[in-house]
Amino acid sequence: MLTMQDALRRLSDYWTSKGCLTWQPFNTEVGAGTMNPATVLRVLGPEPWDVAYVEPSVRPDDSRYGENPNRLQMHTQFQVILKPEPGNPQELYLGSLEALGIDLAKHDVRFVEDNWAQPAIGAWGLGWEVWLDGMEITQFTYFQQVGGQNLDPIPVELTYGVERILMAQQGVTHFKDIVYSIASDGRPVTYGEAFGQQEYEMSRYYLDDADVEANRRLYETYVGEATRMVEARLPVPAHGYILKSSHAFNVLDARGAISTTERAKAFATMRRLMRDTAALWIERREELGFPLLREAAEPTGDPAPAVDREALARTPQTLAFEIGVEELPPHVVPQTIDAVRDALTAKLGASRLAHGAITVDGTPRRIVAVVEDVAASEPDAEQLRKGPKWAAAFDADGNPTKALQGFMRGQGVGADQIVRAEIGGAEHAAVSVALSGRHVLDVASEALADVVSGLRAEKNMRWNDANLSFSRAIRWLLALWGDTVVPVDVSGLTSGRTTYLQRPVAADADGTRSDGALVGHVEVASADDLLETIASGRIELATHTRRASVVDQAIRLAGSVGGTVDVEAEAAVIDEITNLVEEPRGVLGHFDERYLELPEKILTTVMRKHQRYLPVYVDGKLAPHFITMANGLCDEQVVATGNASVIRARYEDALFFWNADLTADNVEGFVPGLDQLTFEDRLGSVGQRARRIADVAGKLADRIGLAGDDRETLTRAGQLAKFDLATQMVVEMSSLAGFIAREYAVRKGETQQVADALFEMEQPHTSADPVPASTAGALLALGDRFDLLASMFALGAKPTGSSDPFGLRRAALGVVRILRESAGTPLETLTVRAGLEDAVARLAEQGVTVADDAVEGALEFTVGRFAQLLRDEGTSAELVAAILPAADAPGRAARLLRELDAASEDARLRPLVETLVRITRILPAEAPSGFDPSALSEPAELDLFTAIEAVPADTAREPLPTVLERTEAVVTTSARFFDEILVNADDPAVRASRQGLLAAVLAMAPADVDWKAVDIALG
Amino acid sequence: MLTMQDALRRLSDYWTSKGCLTWQPFNTEVGAGTMNPATVLRVLGPEPWDVAYVEPSVRPDDSRYGENPNRLQMHTQFQVILKPEPGNPQELYLGSLEALGIDLAKHDVRFVEDNWAQPAIGAWGLGWEVWLDGMEITQFTYFQQVGGQNLDPIPVELTYGVERILMAQQGVTHFKDIVYSIASDGRPVTYGEAFGQQEYEMSRYYLDDADVEANRRLYETYVGEATRMVEARLPVPAHGYILKSSHAFNVLDARGAISTTERAKAFATMRRLMRDTAALWIERREELGFPLLREAAEPTGDPAPAVDREALARTPQTLAFEIGVEELPPHVVPQTIDAVRDALTAKLGASRLAHGAITVDGTPRRIVAVVEDVAASEPDAEQLRKGPKWAAAFDADGNPTKALQGFMRGQGVGADQIVRAEIGGAEHAAVSVALSGRHVLDVASEALADVVSGLRAEKNMRWNDANLSFSRAIRWLLALWGDTVVPVDVSGLTSGRTTYLQRPVAADADGTRSDGALVGHVEVASADDLLETIASGRIELATHTRRASVVDQAIRLAGSVGGTVDVEAEAAVIDEITNLVEEPRGVLGHFDERYLELPEKILTTVMRKHQRYLPVYVDGKLAPHFITMANGLCDEQVVATGNASVIRARYEDALFFWNADLTADNVEGFVPGLDQLTFEDRLGSVGQRARRIADVAGKLADRIGLAGDDRETLTRAGQLAKFDLATQMVVEMSSLAGFIAREYAVRKGETQQVADALFEMEQPHTSADPVPASTAGALLALGDRFDLLASMFALGAKPTGSSDPFGLRRAALGVVRILRESAGTPLETLTVRAGLEDAVARLAEQGVTVADDAVEGALEFTVGRFAQLLRDEGTSAELVAAILPAADAPGRAARLLRELDAASEDARLRPLVETLVRITRILPAEAPSGFDPSALSEPAELDLFTAIEAVPADTAREPLPTVLERTEAVVTTSARFFDEILVNADDPAVRASRQGLLAAVLAMAPADVDWKAVDIALG
Repeated sequence: MLTMQDALRRLSDYWTSKGCLTWQPFNTEVGAGTMNPATVLRVLGPEPWDVAYVEPSVRPDDSRYGENPNRLQMHTQFQVILKPEPGNPQELYLGSLEALGIDLAKHDVRFVEDNWAQPAIGAWGLGWEVWLDGMEITQFTYFQQVGGQNLDPIPVELTYGVERILMAQQGVTHFKDIVYSIASDGRPVTYGEAFGQQEYEMSRYYLDDADVEANRRLYETYVGEATRMVEARLPVPAHGYILKSSHAFNVLDARGAISTTERAKAFATMRRLMRDTAALWIERREELGFPLLREAAEPTGDPAPAVDREALARTPQTLAFEIGVEELPPHVVPQTIDAVRDALTAKLGASRLAHGAITVDGTPRRIVAVVEDVAASEPDAEQLRKGPKWAAAFDADGNPTKALQGFMRGQGVGADQIVRAEIGGAEHAAVSVALSGRHVLDVASEALADVVSGLRAEKNMRWNDANLSFSRAIRWLLALWGDTVVPVDVSGLTSGRTTYLQRPVAADADGTRSDGALVGHVEVASADDLLETIASGRIELATHTRRASVVDQAIRLAGSVGGTVDVEAEAAVIDEITNLVEEPRGVLGHFDERYLELPEKILTTVMRKHQRYLPVYVDGKLAPHFITMANGLCDEQVVATGNASVIRARYEDALFFWNADLTADNVEGFVPGLDQLTFEDRLGSVGQRARRIADVAGKLADRIGLAGDDRETLTRAGQLAKFDLATQMVVEMSSLAGFIAREYAVRKGETQQVADALFEMEQPHTSADPVPASTAGALLALGDRFDLLASMFALGAKPTGSSDPFGLRRAALGVVRILRESAGTPLETLTVRAGLEDAVARLAEQGVTVADDAVEGALEFTVGRFAQLLRDEGTSAELVAAILPAADAPGRAARLLRELDAASEDARLRPLVETLVRITRILPAEAPSGFDPSALSEPAELDLFTAIEAVPADTAREPLPTVLERTEAVVTTSARFFDEILVNADDPAVRASRQGLLAAVLAMAPADVDWKAVDIALG
Repeated sequence: MLTMQDALRRLSDYWTSKGCLTWQPFNTEVGAGTMNPATVLRVLGPEPWDVAYVEPSVRPDDSRYGENPNRLQMHTQFQVILKPEPGNPQELYLGSLEALGIDLAKHDVRFVEDNWAQPAIGAWGLGWEVWLDGMEITQFTYFQQVGGQNLDPIPVELTYGVERILMAQQGVTHFKDIVYSIASDGRPVTYGEAFGQQEYEMSRYYLDDADVEANRRLYETYVGEATRMVEARLPVPAHGYILKSSHAFNVLDARGAISTTERAKAFATMRRLMRDTAALWIERREELGFPLLREAAEPTGDPAPAVDREALARTPQTLAFEIGVEELPPHVVPQTIDAVRDALTAKLGASRLAHGAITVDGTPRRIVAVVEDVAASEPDAEQLRKGPKWAAAFDADGNPTKALQGFMRGQGVGADQIVRAEIGGAEHAAVSVALSGRHVLDVASEALADVVSGLRAEKNMRWNDANLSFSRAIRWLLALWGDTVVPVDVSGLTSGRTTYLQRPVAADADGTRSDGALVGHVEVASADDLLETIASGRIELATHTRRASVVDQAIRLAGSVGGTVDVEAEAAVIDEITNLVEEPRGVLGHFDERYLELPEKILTTVMRKHQRYLPVYVDGKLAPHFITMANGLCDEQVVATGNASVIRARYEDALFFWNADLTADNVEGFVPGLDQLTFEDRLGSVGQRARRIADVAGKLADRIGLAGDDRETLTRAGQLAKFDLATQMVVEMSSLAGFIAREYAVRKGETQQVADALFEMEQPHTSADPVPASTAGALLALGDRFDLLASMFALGAKPTGSSDPFGLRRAALGVVRILRESAGTPLETLTVRAGLEDAVARLAEQGVTVADDAVEGALEFTVGRFAQLLRDEGTSAELVAAILPAADAPGRAARLLRELDAASEDARLRPLVETLVRITRILPAEAPSGFDPSALSEPAELDLFTAIEAVPADTAREPLPTVLERTEAVVTTSARFFDEILVNADDPAVRASRQGLLAAVLAMAPADVDWKAVDIALG
């Protein structure tokens, strides 16, 4: 039995053996090992620093009186910093798991994207959570920035969650049952026996008994001392006081005593202090001469031997190129495959190297490109270099002009080499240069290096070299042309013929696994062998076959318990899984049927979102099974058991939250909790936002004259808006927001209408979601999105590039979809502008300072998204442009679009459009709004007048077919009018009347259509 | 190379392997590992608790900016708690040293008495500091009380000072040079590189930059929260806040911001909070059912087989008895030897067991008694049991009275067995009972058990059994009568035939050492073999031979460098050394000559007091050598080197303090520092005390009319009184107080007179010290002691029993000696009462509430000490009594004593005394003070009158010989007067005159002599 203290000792011993200094837990409460100066200060600056330590981490908010099986006010982290990152941190890390006695040959270890950011200390990094049989056991991060300082060199941080590792290893389901140590009499001492009382009492303090005023005083005093120490240029005590202030803040927070304003202020203060302290630390270390900085060791290893190109093949060969990476996030894999394909195609295309088909595919750990029949060299060629125009090349005497002389000098040729050539449609003096074809090694070397250095993802990081920046660390390059290594050198990475298959474990280090698959690093003889070598490692390189394998295995496993997997519905999860593994190996797991009492959505959300499991249905109902896809050979029983315990813990948590939440008398009781949740510093709490949403929805309801039951539903749902954000369930699983509101509301006596409105107000979340069916739901959903848009534009925080942290694009699309799909309902009349104006007014009421152009900006943004949506749906850009003036009312705009589309077959459309466009061109900007019939005298005028008089008023508001029908005569008579009448007559009265006539024609068609755009669309 | 982190890991591994739970350093600053809840709370109550952990301990006051080689604001403790103490904690501890790679066969490890008390948390314990080659590396304590709670079971605490162990092991002289770890590139990381900046910056904070008001606010807030948590019955957070308040206090203290009042209040607060928290912890654990309490294991081992007494020898045999103890404090060894001898003699004496000589001797680890020729059993005997008086035994009819009947019933006899016997001078009815002699095993068993359970020292402790209480733990009993084990059972200890020689080390576990000595535990066949067995372990059992060995070796080693040891002057140290070791092995060490620039007294104080070394003199001057006495076989070179590094560190410290102190411009600058030192809560600071001393000395100077240079010296010295207590040197080595004052004063421009007075004011410290030679010094010394006596009696804090924490006995003796030895100087006229009155008045001026009987109480106490001193010097109790009336003026009293002594040969003395005593008897309490000569008529009256008239006035004030001479005639005539005259005549006038005559005679002799006592003294 591995006791907890054994585990800590083994981790400590292991990392010490790797050169880490053993540090001690900090003598001030910290929320995480990261905050210990051994991390947060030491990662700054150029000094190397390898350290490992235990850190009992205190999080007052996680206090549960020791009753929750997985949550403690103090949990134990084991923290490792490797600075600079050593080049093989994943392999070192896996070694530490083996040191813990974890048989990696049996377990499923995966690196699952999980990026880390702590804005309060100006820190972020990219990395993974490491999964052991589905359980997160370690946070693995390449730090990029701390205290607002860019880090160089880049450190790797490993944070082990020791309790959860031990719970899994010991097979216990409550932290109290962990065997912590073995006493001298041989009897076990449990975690509960050793720490239970402390858990209870400190929970009491943090949740119930801490004196708020006292802790406020502490907080202020700590901040004061931290500030003074920064001024005194003493970063060590400054840092200590930052930690103390942070803890005092956390205590106040756990006591529910932090207002929104205070939180915002405290975070700003902490950011400032940490930034100043970090900068100061670096300065001070520099003053001390960076004591730990060592001279760089001389690079070892001999330079690669020169290749005798004469000895190489002259015939075309396959070019194989593998970029080995640490586990890419799933969505980055296909992007990178595409990017490599595009870049390689372009680079080779830009050369004159003959080559065959280019195929690129990949896994989370490798992107492989194979180019068939790549010639040994480019063919030789001639190139004409353009000189001055022939006409300007020689003077009257036939001597080279100064221009030509300069060109000759530049090219190093004499006049005898000058030829006359037509270049770009003009005659030029030119010189013909012979280009000798470059060797494939040169061309490919350059192209491949460019491909690698050009790799980028949405989020990029640096690791051991400042010149590369990609989603995750690139660890090896294999580049072969035939059997020759193509030399590629990119920022310290050098290509070779080695590929790295699945990571070996102690049992099969760099050899053959028990199932015969190759593992570890393998030399590849020739480019043609690469795919085979990878396949011999059982790695499914091709995405589509890997996906197919996932699907096939899932179906087979589900079938083994008489169930099915909904491959279509799970497409997104399957895509993700496909790019989480190189060698998918399906494992079927089971959970206790009693959890089926929870709503299915909760269960499947946990499976898909948290665990990337596929749910299994039997007879259309969720069955107590799940399918996980391990990466490579493992002991399926072990992996199934491990994953089952993870999901049990998660379901147990969910059941706990479910039951705990439902002990409330009513859902109204959750509402005050929203005031404890910050929405955004300047915008206040979630509670404030919920009230704004309700008010905006109410104003919109006024606009459409909503009354009766619907109005009552809206009012009640508005009072409860977003209450579920304060439930334990949603705090834990935020994606259930809305769903849980509905579930709890119906269970706690709200009407089905109110419950539905609360659910619908969060819809649509994705493009696949329907819009709210009820008016109350739709109004609240609109209120939500108008508030969000107005809020962000009020703060001047519109989305830029790929950054859209508050999901404004989604909000805008939501508004558009709800309004567009409201045609035929009272909502149809609502405009985006009206909603934004209501929202902005409500923000101002709250005291938020609103940017002047907030409404216009948000409107433009929303309309822009609408236009993009329409284009994405296949509407031509011209038609989209045509209805843009109406886009403020997307319902109407959508109707117009439909009508225009339908009318495109109507022969009357084109004449009408032409008439309207012609009138638009003729009428001045300030055309008269009416006309004096008495000023009309010409027959064409009078005919038109008669035709106009026959058209009912308000025709412009009618559907387009009606307009076409009613205006048919007008259009016809207009044609004659244009032929015979000069609108801009000299007599002002006549001119005005004629203009008025045309204006009347124009007014018969919808004003919010851009007829010129329609005209273009009609071709 | 053992790095520091290796050392921590090895200690952790070792103690874990012994069943300790690995705890973590506390997440709040602690001054010592003791304060971690894993110690201070877990030692309370009945639950077992074995724990080990690292504790970086923060002591703001030790901040030195990282510059002092041995002192850090944060040092690393390794802390172990074994609860209950396991029975062999010393052996376990030694194992941990071996685990650190310390070869115990080469080193000198000793357990040197060092008791521990932390009144601020109501805690104390007895134990040792463990010396490795003279360096303290571990504090080893049997906790007795914590938080004011008596502990049961008793825990052992081990606290390793890790930096110093590593400095010694790595042979470096500055903590910064300790190799802390080896980096991944194989290069060492030093302690300075890892922690140097922190040392500097935190020192800056603690000494210079901490905001006093902020830390006061923190302190108050922490105390408030601790108090609230006690009220909320949450000992865990209460304890945390106690620690925080303690740290805030320490910060304020290091900043010099704590006034005497604040300190007193803070300590009281902390004691109270800690007591309440400790009590609460126990209560709460009890409520939780003492989760860690296990059922006691069944006792194992078979009962000792019954001894067939018939098979035993019938002839007298030697009785050998060994009490094995953990290292006794040196002064306890001879006391215990005496106590065992006395107790054994008494117990055997109270039996009827015939036996020969009793010899008892011992070492710090064993007390051995050998009794020769102890008979196999007591002889049978008869005993008369006393009944009622014979006269009351039978009634008139010769029948037994009720009294006799009762006696017979009680004895179970009939009237026929009643005899008549004279008992105690009266005739009684009695019954004769035959006593069969008890077997030696019974007698000895009881006697020896009584001896053991009766062992007591001044300071006693409990360990694993509540019924034994002694200076240190008793670990084994060997008791043999001939070859038979005498069964002795005392509170779980059972006697046997095993003795434990020097502790074995791994290399020679329980076998034979490289020099042939036996080590470890050995079975002893017979009582006669015990001494030989002990000797075969090279243990010098006999104190006098052990001492002789120490002396011989010291002389030989000193001689080897041409030097000598002053055996007589070093007697006290030699006595101590003799009882610090069982097998003295002298080792000669050396130190750098440059330290000889320090005053010799500093160097020898360090040697004797701190290190128990003997200094070596060459040509009468201190030479750069020292002699230490190791305990048993070791590598002398290793031990010498280790000790040399210890003394180098100490001398380096001393040199540092010396130089640092002497950078001051003048000594006056130290005086304000005295106000930072607390003397006693209610009496204020040392600075206040120093000013009181100066003032009292000034009043005494007024009384003797001191003027001129002496007065100036007194005034100046008074201003500087005790300034050296604020110097770093004296803070570090308090026994140098006074000496350092003189050294610094002369170096900083004070006159030699002032310097001498400052030195002399601390004299006499021991009975061997001379009294001050100068008047100024004597007056200050008196002022010091009068203030101390007056202060304590003012507070009602007179010494009781052996407790005399403020040294009042020494102070009283000082007063007495100074005044007694001032005969012939102006000081002679000073009285104790006058001094005390001045001192009390001065205290009252300061606002101290003075007990009514302060002067009388202190006077009585001082006179009592004087009387005791005189008796101790050999003066008869009667003579002492005779001069007691004069004892208020010890100078005079001493003179009187001398005169009385001298006069004892004078034939005139006895008649005079008899006359005086006779007069005292005759005269009424209110005798007339004069007489009317005209009322005298009888010749004897007139003769006496004439004789009286011839004696010069004020004769009583003359020396006794003069008195004798002048009163000779009066004495002679008095004799006739007594024969012939009735003093108490009826005529009042006559009676008055006669009484007056006698009173006049009485007045010729000193009034402050108790003549009755002289009379008795003369026999």
